[in-house]
Amino acid sequence: MRPKVYLVGAGPGAPDLLTLRAARLLVAADIVFFDALVHPDTLALAEGATKVPVGKRRGRPSPGQEVINRALVRAASRHRTVVRLKGGDPMIFGRAHEEIAALERAGVEWEVVPGVTAALAASAELGVSLTRRGLSRSVTFVTPAVGTEERRTDWASAVVAADTAAIYMGAGEAERIAAALLARGLSHATPVVMIVNASLPDQAAHWGTLASLPRLAARRGEAPAIILMGRVLDEAIQDIAQDREGAVALLRLIGPLVPA
Amino acid sequence: MRPKVYLVGAGPGAPDLLTLRAARLLVAADIVFFDALVHPDTLALAEGATKVPVGKRRGRPSPGQEVINRALVRAASRHRTVVRLKGGDPMIFGRAHEEIAALERAGVEWEVVPGVTAALAASAELGVSLTRRGLSRSVTFVTPAVGTEERRTDWASAVVAADTAAIYMGAGEAERIAAALLARGLSHATPVVMIVNASLPDQAAHWGTLASLPRLAARRGEAPAIILMGRVLDEAIQDIAQDREGAVALLRLIGPLVPA
Repeated sequence: MRPKVYLVGAGPGAPDLLTLRAARLLVAADIVFFDALVHPDTLALAEGATKVPVGKRRGRPSPGQEVINRALVRAASRHRTVVRLKGGDPMIFGRAHEEIAALERAGVEWEVVPGVTAALAASAELGVSLTRRGLSRSVTFVTPAVGTEERRTDWASAVVAADTAAIYMGAGEAERIAAALLARGLSHATPVVMIVNASLPDQAAHWGTLASLPRLAARRGEAPAIILMGRVLDEAIQDIAQDREGAVALLRLIGPLVPA
Repeated sequence: MRPKVYLVGAGPGAPDLLTLRAARLLVAADIVFFDALVHPDTLALAEGATKVPVGKRRGRPSPGQEVINRALVRAASRHRTVVRLKGGDPMIFGRAHEEIAALERAGVEWEVVPGVTAALAASAELGVSLTRRGLSRSVTFVTPAVGTEERRTDWASAVVAADTAAIYMGAGEAERIAAALLARGLSHATPVVMIVNASLPDQAAHWGTLASLPRLAARRGEAPAIILMGRVLDEAIQDIAQDREGAVALLRLIGPLVPA
């Protein structure tokens, strides 16, 4: 059998949200290159494998993408089953394209194993469906562009045009995100929730509106967070508001609602 | 322990793309209500459970959503572990909202277990990432509205505004979808791929452009299909075109390219 590199989705965080296929591959792996957010119990499935961290850890930068690409190609020359374990799903904000291109150029066989992406875990934990008959026919998964890329892609338009939006890797840019979306005409009162550590025991949901997003984001600390917004959140927000304690917390979070 | 209803994502089709959590719940289930597209091997995990089909089968209509809602509530009064097994992920085009609302009204405990959604399985099988640095920062999952809902939601705008789009349950409406998107200014030459039976052994990918989408869709038969479109597909299309046999097949599929 020829060596093969598997780009595997580790799921949103909870080890039991891994797929059966991913679990089987980890057990069989000779070497695993893993992101910082992969759960230790997930990694532990790869009992016999060499484990190589390639994510950002404690402020230290991750190896550059080029370094990871080369390491994958090199590993395929020495091992039969190489696993590249990525948080969530490899094909959504996972830079899988760059790794696949490098493997293709080197003539290395590869395969992608999909995973549960963070927005779906967040939606499941909240109990709020991202789509809904008569209210939401579209959900956009987006990450805000930075620097020179900002001019080439139009992430904000995609958010405004969709009924529901899930913003990945945006909590650190909350102020800029809110400003960009408000500038496009999205209402200050658009319901927003930021879910930190979705699917993990220390998960937290911070509810508010587009106007209060920067304040919500400040509560995240260093943990991974996903931001959901759109009318599908209306009822959940109202339920919280109906609850007395929730109402106080909500008012403290969002301040006075500014009509569109 | 109080009875609980679990809304569980069965994943895109392949039985080993089920999550470990979903597998454990199926093994423990007393009764399972399942969609038509759930794989028999997945269902077989629920060895000791009563299995109730609630999806469309062989042209016969599925029980109405209200009937399913009532059945779930009733099952929770007789069983401890009730599983509602849905194709893909429950929170994307799964009508989970309606079932959750019914369970809430009846005071029945519930929990959602996320799954791998079809677009991610299709992307993995094609080896084409839905997002990509410098090219795609947003991916929209959408299903076209029909009838009176068409006026209330603006699914086509969400497709046009996103860098990449995944259209669910659209193959039967391909002509109308293509017309709506062309009318919004999307280019005839926008790369399109329709993936039938994603993740299953009889999976097939039909490549083309927005102009040829209706012809692609006609090849689907009765199988479930997902449509992907956007510039992330460019390279894959070019790779097919470079291959001689592929080029002939492609030209037959798409006809002359019409510039935007």
